[in-house]
Amino acid sequence: MPPGNTKPFSRIAIVGVGQVGAAATYALILGSVASELLLVDVKVDLRDAQVHDLSDVAYAIDGGTRVRAATHHEAGQCDIVVITAGSRHSLGETGIQHMHRNVSVVRSVVTAMTPFRPDTVVLVVSNPVDLLTTLTKELSGLPEHQVLGSGTFLDSVRLRGLLAEKAEVAASSIQLSVLGVHGDPQVAWSTATINGVPMDKFSYPGAFTPADLADECKERAESIIRVKGAAPCGVGSVVSSICTSIIADKGDVRPISHFQPEFGCCLSSPVVLGRKGILRSVQMALNSEEQNHIANSAKRLKDTMDRIKQGH
Amino acid sequence: MPPGNTKPFSRIAIVGVGQVGAAATYALILGSVASELLLVDVKVDLRDAQVHDLSDVAYAIDGGTRVRAATHHEAGQCDIVVITAGSRHSLGETGIQHMHRNVSVVRSVVTAMTPFRPDTVVLVVSNPVDLLTTLTKELSGLPEHQVLGSGTFLDSVRLRGLLAEKAEVAASSIQLSVLGVHGDPQVAWSTATINGVPMDKFSYPGAFTPADLADECKERAESIIRVKGAAPCGVGSVVSSICTSIIADKGDVRPISHFQPEFGCCLSSPVVLGRKGILRSVQMALNSEEQNHIANSAKRLKDTMDRIKQGH
Amino acid sequence: MPPGNTKPFSRIAIVGVGQVGAAATYALILGSVASELLLVDVKVDLRDAQVHDLSDVAYAIDGGTRVRAATHHEAGQCDIVVITAGSRHSLGETGIQHMHRNVSVVRSVVTAMTPFRPDTVVLVVSNPVDLLTTLTKELSGLPEHQVLGSGTFLDSVRLRGLLAEKAEVAASSIQLSVLGVHGDPQVAWSTATINGVPMDKFSYPGAFTPADLADECKERAESIIRVKGAAPCGVGSVVSSICTSIIADKGDVRPISHFQPEFGCCLSSPVVLGRKGILRSVQMALNSEEQNHIANSAKRLKDTMDRIKQGH
Amino acid sequence: MPPGNTKPFSRIAIVGVGQVGAAATYALILGSVASELLLVDVKVDLRDAQVHDLSDVAYAIDGGTRVRAATHHEAGQCDIVVITAGSRHSLGETGIQHMHRNVSVVRSVVTAMTPFRPDTVVLVVSNPVDLLTTLTKELSGLPEHQVLGSGTFLDSVRLRGLLAEKAEVAASSIQLSVLGVHGDPQVAWSTATINGVPMDKFSYPGAFTPADLADECKERAESIIRVKGAAPCGVGSVVSSICTSIIADKGDVRPISHFQPEFGCCLSSPVVLGRKGILRSVQMALNSEEQNHIANSAKRLKDTMDRIKQGH
Repeated sequence: MPPGNTKPFSRIAIVGVGQVGAAATYALILGSVASELLLVDVKVDLRDAQVHDLSDVAYAIDGGTRVRAATHHEAGQCDIVVITAGSRHSLGETGIQHMHRNVSVVRSVVTAMTPFRPDTVVLVVSNPVDLLTTLTKELSGLPEHQVLGSGTFLDSVRLRGLLAEKAEVAASSIQLSVLGVHGDPQVAWSTATINGVPMDKFSYPGAFTPADLADECKERAESIIRVKGAAPCGVGSVVSSICTSIIADKGDVRPISHFQPEFGCCLSSPVVLGRKGILRSVQMALNSEEQNHIANSAKRLKDTMDRIKQGH
Repeated sequence: MPPGNTKPFSRIAIVGVGQVGAAATYALILGSVASELLLVDVKVDLRDAQVHDLSDVAYAIDGGTRVRAATHHEAGQCDIVVITAGSRHSLGETGIQHMHRNVSVVRSVVTAMTPFRPDTVVLVVSNPVDLLTTLTKELSGLPEHQVLGSGTFLDSVRLRGLLAEKAEVAASSIQLSVLGVHGDPQVAWSTATINGVPMDKFSYPGAFTPADLADECKERAESIIRVKGAAPCGVGSVVSSICTSIIADKGDVRPISHFQPEFGCCLSSPVVLGRKGILRSVQMALNSEEQNHIANSAKRLKDTMDRIKQGH
Repeated sequence: MPPGNTKPFSRIAIVGVGQVGAAATYALILGSVASELLLVDVKVDLRDAQVHDLSDVAYAIDGGTRVRAATHHEAGQCDIVVITAGSRHSLGETGIQHMHRNVSVVRSVVTAMTPFRPDTVVLVVSNPVDLLTTLTKELSGLPEHQVLGSGTFLDSVRLRGLLAEKAEVAASSIQLSVLGVHGDPQVAWSTATINGVPMDKFSYPGAFTPADLADECKERAESIIRVKGAAPCGVGSVVSSICTSIIADKGDVRPISHFQPEFGCCLSSPVVLGRKGILRSVQMALNSEEQNHIANSAKRLKDTMDRIKQGH
Repeated sequence: MPPGNTKPFSRIAIVGVGQVGAAATYALILGSVASELLLVDVKVDLRDAQVHDLSDVAYAIDGGTRVRAATHHEAGQCDIVVITAGSRHSLGETGIQHMHRNVSVVRSVVTAMTPFRPDTVVLVVSNPVDLLTTLTKELSGLPEHQVLGSGTFLDSVRLRGLLAEKAEVAASSIQLSVLGVHGDPQVAWSTATINGVPMDKFSYPGAFTPADLADECKERAESIIRVKGAAPCGVGSVVSSICTSIIADKGDVRPISHFQPEFGCCLSSPVVLGRKGILRSVQMALNSEEQNHIANSAKRLKDTMDRIKQGH
């Protein structure tokens, strides 16, 4: 038998407990995903209010999860660290300003957590997620397969959900991923299947074009950000899903941002998720148009990354 | 066999989808409590953004719940209507101003839903909850046992949770309720038991006094409201718990605000919850000090209620 | 809004409560799938002992399900009727004898339930499942899309589970169905995918051939039947899964036995499952070898069916 | 932070996989209670058939549990060992013969598992459960608080369930335990409460006497054993409940058989359950009649135990 013969006890840290961090914690409690959830935030009043509000959820559920405040150092010793710091857009802030602010925020929280427990898995949620995941991979000193970004998982969930409504089948019976760089993603239409049947061979009641569906997804995402500043509920539920795949060592295949050597940065493609983080990446047979789109976005991301490293 | 031989399909409306309404909807989706959740808000942009953000949760879970926007009229035809409108305190608003604003808000939404489906159960969450539950009972035209308020359920959950941590037992093994008027509640210490053993006969490792515990609860509640303006996560999870008790016809005993003829208004005491709303109220053998405290709060609430009816 | 504005209440009847019926009921209780489970068996002592043993499960879970004894007539008025009567092979009984006994058993229980509630969905589990599903379709007078057989769903679950272990991915990330006539099934290898990636393009750590995997499945099935006389746990869990898809109207795509006009009998191919039973069948692009195998089995099944109708 | 900073992985062994062991495993899989379930039985064919039948449940659920065959030695290294060996009454076997057979069976399996991992918790289910739990405590060399027997937990669940139906409240809102020696138990009527309200002060719709209810429980238990030879479903679900309390470290208060120094043997009284097994025992204020009944049964059990040790 393998080692690890101690009693099971799992800890997840949430670093940054604004609305996104709180929503992720909420879903983690309701799903009884971990034994202990550690909330970390530089705003101590906010952190403590969130600990109290979310402890009430744990009390109501009585599912065995404990919520408490913690330091960055403690966070770095957990099974999983979820970084949501800086997720919310501030009013009037440009994309570039938001990026520079978050690069600084993530640099600071990752540094404060170092050195990590050697088998900690880090999940970056803050935006721009692929850039910050790449940065975290470099700063954390952790193996590549232990640094993940939520990437295009939520985009995939949303697109699959809308398609499920049109096709009148369960979303779990659809295989369709949005890949590449979050913010300039590529739907892998050429490989989409419903229960393994290529999507264009599947007959469904509703009429729609892939382009319409992708547009509807984009409009939904924009309407959420415009009104709420972030998509806390959607992001929170995919964070909970990813953490469950890891803690329960499920082997789920999910589109996740991770380091891709051929591009020199992190972006999303399907991987197998388990206790050690990314167990394996999955090769998709994309068509050349899809491949080119992804490669071009990756190149732009790499350039931005390089400029940031040079201090620009 | 009883009637009702149609296929099961359950609908819950959430009226008011700010942070409290969204948190309640979030918990209802994650718990697969209903087939359909209808979101209603006069702020159409906010409502649609919430529908989109929360639909993503439903897509991620794939649990069979659909989320959509709806009118007040549609809400009044659901199995359960949850009223959270006006839950958030505005900055600088006094308690009295908040009360008058919410009386006006609840009056407006209840009127807009009338006439209700005859067997709809209404759950009022907005504050001051006992006053607004009383108002809703009068305006809705629904039978008394179908109009509920979240009342002191969250206070009870929080106190029980804190006691569970001190006593090192599961919260579900503790029987302890906070009763009376929300905002001036009474802990039913004299009847508290752990697995049926009177609390003062139960030996536990931690040392604490009931008064300390009640103070800690109060401080927690205040810290949450001070920082977040409302307790969305805690309230959301008790709303989900109450809706589950009703939809699944479970017969759970819960402290819930409901009309108590001897006081002429709604306040919290334990009731049996089921598909028809309140199936029965439960008599607690409180001591006279506890009874007096509750009676005095109820009297003040009734006076306020009377003044409001007279237009003051 | 659609009609059906009564409170949700769902009933499933289990007709035949030997080890298979009991295991199905057990899983339905633990999953809180229905409000009420009605157990029906001509052996009254067995039925009552099962009601008592399984009621204890419902009491332990406290999930809102009630278990009770019922008549065949009451069963025919439920949302779903699961027929497991005669599932167990008797010692020394030949396949033919078992078939004739079960034809007689199913004829008798279906007749005793007639007339069914017009929207009842019937799920046949007894073997030979495709023949008995065809028979039930004819005797029940129900629309075709409301008569289902468990068919090759368990074979599919088992094959997918074994493949998941070899490929080190979650079973839910694999799309692979066993189709055709139960007992002489056809694996749809040519359409198998992992997360939509054709199986032969997916790289996995373990080495294995499809033929080895199919053999291992067959050996497992045989070892279970040889020792236990039936596969109660496996069958029970797929029954619970099918009932969940129906009650929660989920739109799951599943390999299910149902009437296929081109063959004149029931056999398994993927369908979309929902509240009305089979919502739609799904066309798979099988290769000609796979198609021929299925057509030949179907022909033999149709011949047997015709002989039985003529009283042979 | 406490130690134990490895990734969570939990293992439960089921020793004896007849119908009771299989039902326990079934419930553990459906509840996703552990990462791995190890099935152990001297009948290798039966063990393998159960591994195969129950693996199909794990495949169907895809909940992250793996089922496999194992040796007694491996079982002794798990987080929890459940001993169900010999649970079924053989036809024509007297109670005394059954006892002597099971003493021999349990002696043999416990010896084969020795030495246990120092923090393993052992749960004895085989009957006579209190005697075999006492024996296991002595043979295993494990600390007292790590050796448990299912005892009167199922009796308590059944009585509470029946009372819940009469009183029309949820079973979880009732505090009522059956205590003492399984087979000659004592209902703790004097301490029974509904949501903390003494049972005789609680008003409920149905009329019944405690004696009638206890009789109905007894008749149910007897009818199950008479027809099925054991109560696999009921026992299986309480085993799953106990294992969940332990693995998730919940602090649930449950009536469990454990060593009581004042009686010199194991019998049931309420305890707090957690990761280390029994965290604390709970003192009930029984009346003298109840206390005497329990003391007398305990004395008879101790005498039987002493005779067995002397080889009679």
